[in-house]
Amino acid sequence: MCRWLAYSGSPILLRDALYAPAHSLIEQSLHSRLGAEATNGDGFGVGWYGAGETPAVFREIAPAWNDANLHEVAGHVTSPLFLAHIRASSGTAVQRTNCHPFRHGRWLFMHNGLINDFPAVKRDLLLDVDPALFCSIEGQTDSELLFHLALTLGLEDDPPAAVAGAVGLVEAAGRRRGVEHPFQGTMVTTDGERMWGFRYSSAGRSRSLFVTTDVPTLRRLYPTMELLERVADDAHLIVSEPLGDLEGAWNEVPEASCVVVGGGRADVEPFVPPRSSRSQRPAHLAGSRPA
Amino acid sequence: MCRWLAYSGSPILLRDALYAPAHSLIEQSLHSRLGAEATNGDGFGVGWYGAGETPAVFREIAPAWNDANLHEVAGHVTSPLFLAHIRASSGTAVQRTNCHPFRHGRWLFMHNGLINDFPAVKRDLLLDVDPALFCSIEGQTDSELLFHLALTLGLEDDPPAAVAGAVGLVEAAGRRRGVEHPFQGTMVTTDGERMWGFRYSSAGRSRSLFVTTDVPTLRRLYPTMELLERVADDAHLIVSEPLGDLEGAWNEVPEASCVVVGGGRADVEPFVPPRSSRSQRPAHLAGSRPA
Amino acid sequence: MCRWLAYSGSPILLRDALYAPAHSLIEQSLHSRLGAEATNGDGFGVGWYGAGETPAVFREIAPAWNDANLHEVAGHVTSPLFLAHIRASSGTAVQRTNCHPFRHGRWLFMHNGLINDFPAVKRDLLLDVDPALFCSIEGQTDSELLFHLALTLGLEDDPPAAVAGAVGLVEAAGRRRGVEHPFQGTMVTTDGERMWGFRYSSAGRSRSLFVTTDVPTLRRLYPTMELLERVADDAHLIVSEPLGDLEGAWNEVPEASCVVVGGGRADVEPFVPPRSSRSQRPAHLAGSRPA
Amino acid sequence: MCRWLAYSGSPILLRDALYAPAHSLIEQSLHSRLGAEATNGDGFGVGWYGAGETPAVFREIAPAWNDANLHEVAGHVTSPLFLAHIRASSGTAVQRTNCHPFRHGRWLFMHNGLINDFPAVKRDLLLDVDPALFCSIEGQTDSELLFHLALTLGLEDDPPAAVAGAVGLVEAAGRRRGVEHPFQGTMVTTDGERMWGFRYSSAGRSRSLFVTTDVPTLRRLYPTMELLERVADDAHLIVSEPLGDLEGAWNEVPEASCVVVGGGRADVEPFVPPRSSRSQRPAHLAGSRPA
Repeated sequence: MCRWLAYSGSPILLRDALYAPAHSLIEQSLHSRLGAEATNGDGFGVGWYGAGETPAVFREIAPAWNDANLHEVAGHVTSPLFLAHIRASSGTAVQRTNCHPFRHGRWLFMHNGLINDFPAVKRDLLLDVDPALFCSIEGQTDSELLFHLALTLGLEDDPPAAVAGAVGLVEAAGRRRGVEHPFQGTMVTTDGERMWGFRYSSAGRSRSLFVTTDVPTLRRLYPTMELLERVADDAHLIVSEPLGDLEGAWNEVPEASCVVVGGGRADVEPFVPPRSSRSQRPAHLAGSRPA
Repeated sequence: MCRWLAYSGSPILLRDALYAPAHSLIEQSLHSRLGAEATNGDGFGVGWYGAGETPAVFREIAPAWNDANLHEVAGHVTSPLFLAHIRASSGTAVQRTNCHPFRHGRWLFMHNGLINDFPAVKRDLLLDVDPALFCSIEGQTDSELLFHLALTLGLEDDPPAAVAGAVGLVEAAGRRRGVEHPFQGTMVTTDGERMWGFRYSSAGRSRSLFVTTDVPTLRRLYPTMELLERVADDAHLIVSEPLGDLEGAWNEVPEASCVVVGGGRADVEPFVPPRSSRSQRPAHLAGSRPA
Repeated sequence: MCRWLAYSGSPILLRDALYAPAHSLIEQSLHSRLGAEATNGDGFGVGWYGAGETPAVFREIAPAWNDANLHEVAGHVTSPLFLAHIRASSGTAVQRTNCHPFRHGRWLFMHNGLINDFPAVKRDLLLDVDPALFCSIEGQTDSELLFHLALTLGLEDDPPAAVAGAVGLVEAAGRRRGVEHPFQGTMVTTDGERMWGFRYSSAGRSRSLFVTTDVPTLRRLYPTMELLERVADDAHLIVSEPLGDLEGAWNEVPEASCVVVGGGRADVEPFVPPRSSRSQRPAHLAGSRPA
Repeated sequence: MCRWLAYSGSPILLRDALYAPAHSLIEQSLHSRLGAEATNGDGFGVGWYGAGETPAVFREIAPAWNDANLHEVAGHVTSPLFLAHIRASSGTAVQRTNCHPFRHGRWLFMHNGLINDFPAVKRDLLLDVDPALFCSIEGQTDSELLFHLALTLGLEDDPPAAVAGAVGLVEAAGRRRGVEHPFQGTMVTTDGERMWGFRYSSAGRSRSLFVTTDVPTLRRLYPTMELLERVADDAHLIVSEPLGDLEGAWNEVPEASCVVVGGGRADVEPFVPPRSSRSQRPAHLAGSRPA
């Protein structure tokens, strides 16, 4: 499917996270180890917070490994919080509007995985999106639709509950249409202050997700490692797969969990989508069911 | 908005219609005379019939005027029926899936114009599309949605009635949402045998549309013109604006009309979208109204 | 040909110079008033100084007017010195390596204009480039070649003399090959501290070039204009054509002149390419003449 | 490096050779087995003979595996002779002008491999190109330069001798600059009638090259295989790596050989670049040596 990375901490050059590591995200665009496919060459995207009221989103349809503009932007932009994504299309067109991250106001969202049998449930799920948000959907991916379901359910107020609710709607739609395992994926969303990473699949066999150990702990483990002196105290990465082999640095996020990163901490909580019921339906559709 | 061209007749090299004329479509991409904008540089598309059961569709996001691949394809492909379109985006993204022509089976469709206040009616109109066709919508344009409304209403059986019905749905949705003049545009659709060109706007002030005089008549008018010796007897063009200045060659299609080209003839008929009523609603939605 | 803009002053968001003005560079990509063509849609480029030892260069082949990534970068990057260029190809391919600005170490270079009958002199001029610089030429434009001629002749030590020498080589090559007016153009180069703008043509009829009046003077002229309160004291723009209509703000740089911007000042000097002679030949070719 | 395919025989749909085979070229763009890299995603190109005096060349910078336009063209164009190439850049920019095949009049040329330490010899080799051909070089690859060296040395009159001479110039330039093994690669060139495939490397360890067994022989080997009934008698493919596993169908072209395909035959000859001497220098440079 895809691979992604999310950084939060003291401002660093994007390049230090995207290109520098041994098994960097750019390297993963050609040679992913843990992904569903080795190659993630169907476009990429970067979102970062800095100047401007909303985060920047830079997306391109070329493979990341040889894109000169990504190299330039990553080498000249510093940010305290940024996301990056490399795409392997699961069927939808290779176009910028299908590239992650997706943005709404100050919020960004990325996804690796898929809504199974998306054509069977796409119409139902689009109807579940708040009509006021309907026209901000710019592409055709299951991922962007999922983001808008979460926005519909209050992402900006309670991200874990809203993402759980959105996955719940996907599972409910899938069950109605006879899809066995409606959802799988890892996701991340952020408001520029905190990051919420999710790992979940209807079948209980999700793609991998990792979060880094906090830096002071790593320094105690490796008191002589120079690299760790240059990393900020409060830095954390959430990633699809580890960027290197340092033992003790990469912690697998458990199945059906949410990891919350902020203020130098990374906390893991359970993530359980609700069995959708009338009370959890989006308010605009309460009481009705589309044909 | 956009400019387009449709050719039917004995097979010719695409280049002869796209590049060769004095005021060719490629020239119009930089310097349109009659269009809403002088520049139509937000992508282009060509559809042609030939080898293969369905027509080819070649679309690109670069401006037509300098695209080397369009020049190559046009210079090496011959076809008895082809469409070409140059785009000036009215707001949606510059991506291939938003470029015309759109295809369904053996059918192609192009549009110049717009659904006014599209965000206000988009959701309603998407619900009017046959759910079985819903997932073949690949982009985000009003034009592709219009095509799918016409397909929903039987384009493959009765093109003029289906296109009129689709425009009727647009006007009905617009009226419900308080849009003053819901639709304007010129359109063309074809099954590879005949071409139907349409000119209509809710306000009665449509973009221009022209169809060429039949070739034998032109030869009688210009008995010494060599160019006309090289053109096939049965050739017809439907175009947004004339490709040259030959008097008597370009006939304006009247407001609220449909021109049918086939078998060497071009016939003009009235085109009147129905005032939408319950009986004209798509079958799948009869009796219900989306929220 | 092309249009360009160069800003130096207190750091501002790129967007404030590229998009905000009434007749902005982005607007000029569709509707240039003073350019050789109204449309400058064959790619664009931005170069800026900030994080990183060398300036960033972001170049794309899409028209500037609708490019989402340019809009994002311009809306989220601030810089004390940046260049922007919109291209109308004079024949060479639309590809990133043919887009301006060009970079060498900390130096950037842009050009609007052309080497007349470039095919006739291209080989000669390539031979004039320092062999050590030969392989840093990445595209096929006359402009990038001109930049490398100037680098060969010491651009990094004495920009006006090196650019004059480069133009001198072009004129000498043109004369040898029977080209009547070998060169025309406006150019700008910068090391991130100062900017040098040039206006020159062999025929004495150069494209337009303007430099802004210093801000304190403008404030005295327009004591109640709020916009001027928000502009930094030391800000200067060098541009192909004015971005607005404010009387007294835009000063035409005279024919055959160089304008030097730095330290809040803009000084105009004469620019006279030398009649090339043996002593001005690049050192690596002294005494020989290529076949 | 790259992978490529060349077809000659009765006209077929491009798709039948590019997409249909088990281990098709399109499949190789993601998963090459014998290439230097598994992924060949830095653009592609197709050249075909048909309508028009010169062959068509369609090149794109996107990966082949998901390019909709390539799929359309391949599905709707038939040709009796065509070439296709998928690129893995060895360092030069991902742009159309660096994509193969390259064209000169009725001739096409493709290459998989490289000129070792190209920056060290590029200037020398460019000077070896006939000045009259100099400006038809549009990109920056070693491959296009090699093609122009062969054109300089009479490719259109005696392809094997001209290609051998071109490789000889590369080896001579490499030796002068201290490059140990100056050249490696497989190449193919064609005038639309015959195809010449080459396999050679200075070190004697070339990339793989295969030519298909003639069809009548294959039919005798597999008298019940239906697929072979549908293939033309005179069809031949030259390929970087086999498109399938049919035993007896794919014959490795030996090291330092040329395979000539035409008239339903495929003949293998030795290929030995000359040790460059004064007499083999391009005529325009006889007697001189660039600095």
